Amino acid sequence: MLIFTEQELKQYVDINSEAVELVEAAFTKLANNEAVMPPIMRVDLEEHNGEVDVKTAYLKGKEMFAIKISSGFFNNFQLGLPTGNGMMILINTQTGVPEAVLLDNGYLTDVRTAAAGAVAAAYLSKNTIETAGVIGAGSQARYQLRALSLVRNFSKVLIYSRSAERSQKFAEEMTAELGREVIAVQSAEFVVRNSEIVISTTPSKEPIIKADWLHPGLHITAMGSDAEQKQELEPEVLAKADILVCDTKAQCARLGELHHALATGVLTEVSRVLELGELTSFKTSGRVNDEQITVCDLTGTGVQDTAIALFAYQEMIKRNKGLNIENKILQNK
Amino acid sequence: MLIFTEQELKQYVDINSEAVELVEAAFTKLANNEAVMPPIMRVDLEEHNGEVDVKTAYLKGKEMFAIKISSGFFNNFQLGLPTGNGMMILINTQTGVPEAVLLDNGYLTDVRTAAAGAVAAAYLSKNTIETAGVIGAGSQARYQLRALSLVRNFSKVLIYSRSAERSQKFAEEMTAELGREVIAVQSAEFVVRNSEIVISTTPSKEPIIKADWLHPGLHITAMGSDAEQKQELEPEVLAKADILVCDTKAQCARLGELHHALATGVLTEVSRVLELGELTSFKTSGRVNDEQITVCDLTGTGVQDTAIALFAYQEMIKRNKGLNIENKILQNK
Repeated sequence: MLIFTEQELKQYVDINSEAVELVEAAFTKLANNEAVMPPIMRVDLEEHNGEVDVKTAYLKGKEMFAIKISSGFFNNFQLGLPTGNGMMILINTQTGVPEAVLLDNGYLTDVRTAAAGAVAAAYLSKNTIETAGVIGAGSQARYQLRALSLVRNFSKVLIYSRSAERSQKFAEEMTAELGREVIAVQSAEFVVRNSEIVISTTPSKEPIIKADWLHPGLHITAMGSDAEQKQELEPEVLAKADILVCDTKAQCARLGELHHALATGVLTEVSRVLELGELTSFKTSGRVNDEQITVCDLTGTGVQDTAIALFAYQEMIKRNKGLNIENKILQNK
Repeated sequence: MLIFTEQELKQYVDINSEAVELVEAAFTKLANNEAVMPPIMRVDLEEHNGEVDVKTAYLKGKEMFAIKISSGFFNNFQLGLPTGNGMMILINTQTGVPEAVLLDNGYLTDVRTAAAGAVAAAYLSKNTIETAGVIGAGSQARYQLRALSLVRNFSKVLIYSRSAERSQKFAEEMTAELGREVIAVQSAEFVVRNSEIVISTTPSKEPIIKADWLHPGLHITAMGSDAEQKQELEPEVLAKADILVCDTKAQCARLGELHHALATGVLTEVSRVLELGELTSFKTSGRVNDEQITVCDLTGTGVQDTAIALFAYQEMIKRNKGLNIENKILQNK
């Protein structure tokens, strides 16, 4: 049993093309019925304004699969602690033996979420992009830009968040990191109207992006919503899309933007909604011309978690990292 | 973050009155709506003849709650490995921070299952018992007898299992351990007809205990069935019981003996079925005279897992046990 700490994982595991490809392959397995992914297990701790989710998926043919525990405790800031926490456990698929504990505190979730964003962009955004837009200035916004730069060659970024100060800091830091012009702007509307791809990464509970702002060729990836009450897009944005894609329909209908579109009746059960795996497995085509408007709704899936945990394990093992607990016991005898 | 190994846990945590009381209190919280317990999460790995379950429950007022991962891989014997594996993670209920990993390989599940058996016996078996019966000669049968001896003062035990050799070994070892006469007998029927309480602890897929064998005053606890295909009791046994109790109705209707009784129509949705927490919380009385026939169907619940994980944590902490991973990192710096 190996234990990996957040510190080690951050040092040796990062978003790169291999991570994106592994997440892409995981979505393909899901579409090809080569994955077993039960619904999310959720524990609400209302008295403490917290929730804990368990996600998992077994990808057929892989030596291990991940079980991920992630939490959001919304009073933690009062204690000077981060809202989110998390860890993953890798289980051997042949024997059920736990092989590794990844004490990543949510870091690998950031990486696999960004990887899914890159997959969505690869299949749904125009091939040639000048300007990418980001709404939200948190760490996921940064990972999304890094991931996007692996699949699209944009030259400019527009960033909007509620805090002008945070936006400005984001712009400066990401300009330096990416070597591309990142500009803080004054409104979400300006971002959407002037970008060819927009990635929204906020914890918003009210729609930010309005359908009026959409324009031919635009692709939007909304990844903020992963709970019933969260919402970044007006429901009409989904209705206006020529192609609407979810990571999984069932989960988005419960927790994502699709949930609000169905609840308001803007979309119905029979509306055409694709899954990301249908694109990656080439069962259906993504964008076919530069005029289509496309939207991708990401809630975060167990197949991504298993894909990224296996990637992290591989990166750590080849560097001989991790604390071996059995060895520890033997040493103590 | 503390890590506890199976070796340490087995050394310092055992079934005792406190463990039984904590499990009893957990059932009471469940009945009083002071617990949040989502349905079991299950991953089937059919190609490998394996399954992994995740169970959890938050008990209001407790500082931590457990998430348990347990597996059964039925080809493991070919590799010289045990079928079952498991671990528990304790999460802080105020912050969501993972506080401990208990690498118990299923040991704590054995303890908490035995504790539930003791709770069932305390509320449902006659107060005065001469002979206790056990069907199955595995480790859980041993834990059940140890737990039963905490709540009932029997003088004789009858044990039957499919292997006469294993039964004989069980009889000899448990006679020595308990200081009571433990006798290996030739049939399940002999056990049931001649015992006042019977505990069945087998992985049987076909009913072992027949309704014809029941007699006034008998209590049966069936704990083998925790999956759709498992069954230890003829459905008519449940129908014949004056009091029928489940750990949770919903789970037993899916995975326990109740499942088969409902499937065959021997019982229906409107049949009177109690939950263990209704007895421990004194909402309903258990056995009220020495003539009643009582049956308890146990499938194993998340509230038990959290109760036993908290008990184990307390026992380890007061002895300064466990490997502190953060310290480890600091030492390595």
